[in-house]
Amino acid sequence: MSAHNLHPLDQAIALTDTAPGRYTAHTHPDYANAVGPFGGVTAALLLNAAIKHPQAQGEPIAQTVHFAAPISDDVMHIDANPVRTNRSTQHWLVQAFQGGQLVAMATAVFALRRETWSATDAIFPGNQPAPESLTPMSWDGRPRFTYCYDLRYISGIVVPQASPTDAQPGNAESLLWVRDEPPRTLDFPALASICDIFFPRILIRRQRRVPMGTVTLTSYFHADSQMLAQIGSAHLLGRARAQIYRNGYFDQSAEVWSAAGQLLATTHQMVYFKE
Amino acid sequence: MSAHNLHPLDQAIALTDTAPGRYTAHTHPDYANAVGPFGGVTAALLLNAAIKHPQAQGEPIAQTVHFAAPISDDVMHIDANPVRTNRSTQHWLVQAFQGGQLVAMATAVFALRRETWSATDAIFPGNQPAPESLTPMSWDGRPRFTYCYDLRYISGIVVPQASPTDAQPGNAESLLWVRDEPPRTLDFPALASICDIFFPRILIRRQRRVPMGTVTLTSYFHADSQMLAQIGSAHLLGRARAQIYRNGYFDQSAEVWSAAGQLLATTHQMVYFKE
Repeated sequence: MSAHNLHPLDQAIALTDTAPGRYTAHTHPDYANAVGPFGGVTAALLLNAAIKHPQAQGEPIAQTVHFAAPISDDVMHIDANPVRTNRSTQHWLVQAFQGGQLVAMATAVFALRRETWSATDAIFPGNQPAPESLTPMSWDGRPRFTYCYDLRYISGIVVPQASPTDAQPGNAESLLWVRDEPPRTLDFPALASICDIFFPRILIRRQRRVPMGTVTLTSYFHADSQMLAQIGSAHLLGRARAQIYRNGYFDQSAEVWSAAGQLLATTHQMVYFKE
Repeated sequence: MSAHNLHPLDQAIALTDTAPGRYTAHTHPDYANAVGPFGGVTAALLLNAAIKHPQAQGEPIAQTVHFAAPISDDVMHIDANPVRTNRSTQHWLVQAFQGGQLVAMATAVFALRRETWSATDAIFPGNQPAPESLTPMSWDGRPRFTYCYDLRYISGIVVPQASPTDAQPGNAESLLWVRDEPPRTLDFPALASICDIFFPRILIRRQRRVPMGTVTLTSYFHADSQMLAQIGSAHLLGRARAQIYRNGYFDQSAEVWSAAGQLLATTHQMVYFKE
């Protein structure tokens, strides 16, 4: 398959091997954010660097990404290392450099899962309007990467314009349907990226734009690749909330569910804000 | 002050410099868990390695710890590196080795905070019985480290015995008061350790013992050192929950509040379990 037949996400997370665990990669114009690439696609790229490593064992269950510095539209050198491999778990360190400087860093845990007692304590936010009954998010001047996702907000929509108002909701909860656009079969890189698709909660909470950016993101994956493939390209149901905003940083958490009520991922991040 | 006058936590997180950012350290018998040290004290030790680094800038706002392998009661070699320092944020990688093998790894973000608009979306679980009105947790044969904490459960108590019953609650929420024992003024290492004081949720959910262990822990710190010092050695109010248990791994999240309703930390972990 030639490169332009690949889904844009697969182009964006493409890696060129230079040695075992060493790669070069490039940002992709479709996934551009206001400054540098969308954080989700950086998470997907760094996770892919571990997945493609010849020593990879099992499937991802956790990833933490540090957005250390702005990533420019230039070559990235990526170094993926399985820093500890046990019988059923493997710990990873992945670092991305531009011009010899670290721009992003990820750690991850891969695991060989076995069937066990299983249960879900989180409450599935079911009985929502079907994605087909909702209008996809659309406004002029939004970041380029949002066109790579079909985002259908049920509640807690992000404000389209930089117009401060006095009406602030009491919290920043959002419910939305999301899938890749164009549709793409779900896998771990795609899920890792969707874990960062929830707009910074401060935009919803304050109903105004403020300068901000994620500094660190942690995602836990509760699915296996077979389950993800079965979900295919269906919309996923996301629920995002914040806990606290204080002196320049806030945290937010989200759940990513299948339409059938499987909790696929839980994800948390600390976000810088200026005012 | 001689070593035996130090609080046990300060003894447990003591570091001997061998070069800038390189240290030796030892496990402490008071913080022993069933296998190796209590994970919280490992988190505190690795955070302390960054705090004590001559290039540290600002205060911790986030930490992720990978419990890569069992830590034996032997010397640890710790290597702390500020992998990227920006104007207001600093990203850290801290690795601990025994016998040349990685046994634990942490990443962290330090930041210089500025006063901004602030708000708390999480609901403070106030109006709880005072710690003085509750009995400290106590049972025979519990892990040694639990004696280093004054733990007063309000609800969702951990089962003292390995006796499976049929009565499983519908979720694994716990509310409890906690402080260091003996009392110690709160600081970032102490808070980082308390973030791991919430027993694995599967013990509460299933009301039975199963083999388990945390593989990765992420904590976000919403306080500054002045706020922590003002809280002093008062009890903190913790609230812990799980989201999902599936095929060998579950995640849990917790909030750590001051008695006055300040949200000091939010914390998340993925935990291995066997059955």
